[in-house]
Order: sequence, then structure tokens, then C-alpha cells
Amino acid sequence: MKVAVVGVTGAVGREMTRILQERHFPVDEFLPLASSRSAGLTVDFDGEEHMVRELSLEALRGADVALVSAGASVSRSFIPEAAAAGTTCIDNSSAFRMEPDVPLSIPEVNPEALEGHPKIVAVPNCTTITAMLAIGPLHRAAGLRSLVMSSYQSVSGAGWKGTRELIEQIAKLHGQEEELGRPDADALPVGEVFGKTIAYNVVAKIGEFADGGYTGEELKIIAEPKKILNLPELHVVATAVRVPVPVGHAVSMVATFDRPISPEEARALLAVAPGVELRDDPANDVYPSPLEAAGLDVALVGRIRQVPDRPDALALFSCADNLRKGAALDAVQIAEYLFTR
Amino acid sequence: MKVAVVGVTGAVGREMTRILQERHFPVDEFLPLASSRSAGLTVDFDGEEHMVRELSLEALRGADVALVSAGASVSRSFIPEAAAAGTTCIDNSSAFRMEPDVPLSIPEVNPEALEGHPKIVAVPNCTTITAMLAIGPLHRAAGLRSLVMSSYQSVSGAGWKGTRELIEQIAKLHGQEEELGRPDADALPVGEVFGKTIAYNVVAKIGEFADGGYTGEELKIIAEPKKILNLPELHVVATAVRVPVPVGHAVSMVATFDRPISPEEARALLAVAPGVELRDDPANDVYPSPLEAAGLDVALVGRIRQVPDRPDALALFSCADNLRKGAALDAVQIAEYLFTR
Repeated sequence: MKVAVVGVTGAVGREMTRILQERHFPVDEFLPLASSRSAGLTVDFDGEEHMVRELSLEALRGADVALVSAGASVSRSFIPEAAAAGTTCIDNSSAFRMEPDVPLSIPEVNPEALEGHPKIVAVPNCTTITAMLAIGPLHRAAGLRSLVMSSYQSVSGAGWKGTRELIEQIAKLHGQEEELGRPDADALPVGEVFGKTIAYNVVAKIGEFADGGYTGEELKIIAEPKKILNLPELHVVATAVRVPVPVGHAVSMVATFDRPISPEEARALLAVAPGVELRDDPANDVYPSPLEAAGLDVALVGRIRQVPDRPDALALFSCADNLRKGAALDAVQIAEYLFTR
Repeated sequence: MKVAVVGVTGAVGREMTRILQERHFPVDEFLPLASSRSAGLTVDFDGEEHMVRELSLEALRGADVALVSAGASVSRSFIPEAAAAGTTCIDNSSAFRMEPDVPLSIPEVNPEALEGHPKIVAVPNCTTITAMLAIGPLHRAAGLRSLVMSSYQSVSGAGWKGTRELIEQIAKLHGQEEELGRPDADALPVGEVFGKTIAYNVVAKIGEFADGGYTGEELKIIAEPKKILNLPELHVVATAVRVPVPVGHAVSMVATFDRPISPEEARALLAVAPGVELRDDPANDVYPSPLEAAGLDVALVGRIRQVPDRPDALALFSCADNLRKGAALDAVQIAEYLFTR
């Protein structure tokens, strides 16, 4: 198989390249593609150096599958034509997620969406994946009615430049942490990526403000669960917050269901759920954190509690590596489902 | 007036001492008290050095008011006797908050609780205050029915030792941020305060695990709003999360009300609410963050949105300085209400 990675030098592209090798995806020819800025760099694949080429339809010609993580506008610019030319495009951006004829799939949660040989498949938002890996099995058992989410999203969700901005700001502020109790607003570093200081702060804006005061990120994680779970009437609300963590997203959720469901039942369901590792044993101080989820291929789920006086509602906390499980791994798993089952 | 600060060398005690001076509370005699560990240190008050004495009923004798921030077990050990001896004790700990005859007050939200010359008054939890300053005015207008909270709490909520633990861990990990995408679990620093690595992570456990898998902190912020708003049947659920921020708590909330309430109405109410500064203008990129709330005497409230398809429900985000507005300032404002109106 001829496999392209588009955006291969980015944070998610690097993980896609790693994961194709880790999982022994049957790659006969590896095509590393990126913007003109990165063309000419080299990428290691299976022990050989490959030169990165600039993305074009010509460069993609003959590719069986393209794993794409280059931003929504780049995806829009080439995916429809590449798919028409025969390349199955698995896209990590938001460009096609809500298109009715494009599957939006987490293979552990809604593999049925991948039936019918789709030529374009969308990978959900990284926070959506972190949430749905935990919620999917509970929904199948008890019927999800509503979902309230507050996220704790790492800076690598904004790519390398997000990680660099955090590191630079930490370098500036480390040693002055105690003075941040009365910060001099004019002296606080503000970068181009996060809009406010992200070091030693949390920033309740991801993406641009849009309809009704929601951010772009919030609108994604509100819309996507309805499509993934095939629940157009689901009630969802979300607040998306950036936190000064390099890798690993977390999401605090309150979910209501069609019938009573206890924490014990939820734990039993999640203990055997694919893509999930249950970390929920308060008596032994076991609960998940995003730094512990970094580098893993599963979401860590814990803090499962009954909502007071609500036998039909649970609170829970899920953490996943936003670059791997929340993006690159989902893309590779979709490719596996389509090509190697 | 003879005014004691108990726990005067702590993070909140220092702010109490500052705020008494900033607000010109009528202090004739200043009594700085602390544990034996801190006895003999000096504290500046109105330009004079005062020697810290060890806390005892003898040392408190004759004090008109004691502002106390020394932890729940210390508070339990002396407040009932000190109050019986005539000292009005305003306590920042959780020791007496849920006692039926002890007012739990945020003067801007429920000043009525302070009527009747109480001798013990409890200051609510810092996250409760951050939430209630925003919710109180909305409740008075539209009747609060339910509240879902996820918090983003700074390390100074655990005192100086919390701030130190963050600084030490940042010192260890700074320069290795990119490796935290695949962390070596055995090499991650874990301190005594937070149980997990708090630098570059978030920790979804504050206090100890208790009933139903809730933490001590969560049980406080679930119980306290019911008492403050005099709504024993209120539905509240909370997830309390520590974040690597030195000072400033944030809380993401979804609130439902007895009647429809729009973001515009909520903004109009909060624009004139005491103790609140509205920071909510998405068109001009205005929204609050905890680092911006640090050092302020108001909660910054923004990100007000209608919950989709729910005219009776709002999402919002409130940030406050957990040492000042969330603790020390509330205590001084209670003292002002009781003694200087």
C-alpha cells in the first residue's frame, strides 16, 4: 500500500508516522507531505530517511490512503479532488466532520459509520474523542440524554507553536511565581497562539468566538457527539479551556441517561470497553490525570460518581493523549478498519 | 478595636493583614497569632513590626474580633471557647461552615445571614465564593434550580507549601517539556501536597476521597451553596480540579433557573452586582482568566452563554483571587459588616 501522511512534520503528523510503524500498518511506499515550508526536510520511516515533499495532487497520485493533519483550510483545498482520484483521505481537521455523507468515526465507539467504503473519513476533535471513549459504552447500555462538559486541554492541541509558547512563557515567569499573586498586567507575556498568558494561567477560549458566545472549539465538541452517537436531539453544552499542560487533554463530564445507572455499573462497562483503561479506585487513591495519559493509546477514565439525588446521572473524568488517541491513533485505526480487517 | 489574625504567617493570613490596612479597618491593637513554629517571627502592620505570638486563649484574651485561617482542626480547638469569652471569630476553615447556628456568609450575596450579632461566622470555601458571586444575582432574579461546576483551582489554595511544590516541580521539568509527551512515570516528581505531579498536569483530587467517590473539596462546594442561598433542595454537582496556576481560582458553571433568563439579562444583572466585574464581550475578545483576577477584590465573570435549546439555563465562567476575594477579603468584609456599618 502507498500511504501518505499530510502535515507530516506537525505534532499530529509525527505521531501518525510513529503509529503506522508501531502498529505495523502494511506500508509499501511511504509518502511524507507537508507545506512548502517543510519540503526538503527528512522523516525517518522504518529505518530509512524520506524526503518531505510539498503537498499537491500530483504528489498524492496513486496513494491508497492519506492521513491528513494540516488544518481545515488545507484539507478543504485538496481532499475532495484527491478522494475523487481514488485516495481514501482520513482527515484530522474539522473541514468535513459535519458533512452528512462523511463518516465521523472513533472505531471503538461507532465503527458502523465506516461501512460502505467511504473515500473521506473525518477524525473527531481530540476532546470529543476523549469524552466519547468514556461515554460511548455508557450510552449503549443506558441511553445518553444530556452531556455537560468542561475541558482541560493541553497546549499541544495548538501544535508545536502552542508547546513553544508555553515553554517560552514559563522561561520568562519561572522564579517570579510568588509575584503572580499580584501580577503586573503589562509585564505578563502574551503570545500569538493563546491570546492571553498561558503559563501559570488557564484560558477559556479555544478557537474564535462564534454564535451565541461559544468558541469554535465548543461548537465542535457540542455538535460532534450528536453525529457520532447518532443522537441528533442530544442536549450537549461545553466550556473549552486551555491549561498549561504540554500533552494530554482532560474532560470533566456530567451525563444523564434514559434509565438509572450506578457508578458500579459504569465501572463494569468501562472495565471492558475498548480504548479505555479504567483508573477509578478512590479507596486506593487511583484516578486519572492527563500527564499520565500522555503517550498512551487509551483514554484513562475515573472519578465516576452518582450525581446527588439523580440515579440517572453520573459525573466522570476522562483523560487522553490529544496527539495520539485524540488524533493520530484514531486516524490509523480508521485506516486499519478500512484496509486491514 | 483589638483585632487578632490567627494563622498570620500563612498565605491567607498575610492577605488578611494586608487587607485590614488597605481598607483602614479600625484596628487599635493588632494581635498576630500563629502556631509555635512561627512564634517569634515579626509581621508589619501600619508601619510597625509586631512579634507573632503562639495561638492560645490567653493570647486572644480581650480581642474583639479574630480573623482565623489556620485549618479546620486548629479552628475547632479554640473557636468555641474564644467565642464564649467574647471574641467574634470569623473563620476561613471548613470547621463550622455547616453548623446550623453559624452564618456562612459572602456579604455581597447573603448579608442577611450576618444579622443577630453572631459570635462565630464562617467564610465559605474559595471556590464556593468564586461561584456564588456570579450566581447570587442571577438566583435573586430568576431562582436557581441546579448548578453543575468544574473548577480550575490554583496551588495557593493549599497554602505556601502548595506554591512551593509547583515551583520545585517546574524547576525540575522545565527544559524537558517536549519529553512530557511520553513521560517516564518513574521520573515524574510527586510531592506531599498534591499526590500527583502538579507541574504541567491537572489533578482531579482536592482533599481526601469521601462518600460516593467525591472529594472533601467537592462535598464542600456542593453543600455550601445550598446554605448560602437558603435552597436546601438545590441540585448541585461539582468536580474540583487543581491546575498549575499560582493564584486565582476559576469555575466553569452550568446553571438552570425557575424561569427563562438570557445572557443579555444575566450581563445586565452582573454589570451592577457587588463584588463582580463583568468581563464578557466576545466581539472584542473580552473574557476572564484567573491570572487576571489575582490581586483583585472582585470576581471576574464572563463567557455567559445560553445552553443550547434551554432558555432557562446559562453557562458561565468566574475567576477570583482565592487568597483575597475567596478568603481574606470575605473575612474582613464580614468584620466590617458586623463592626463598622
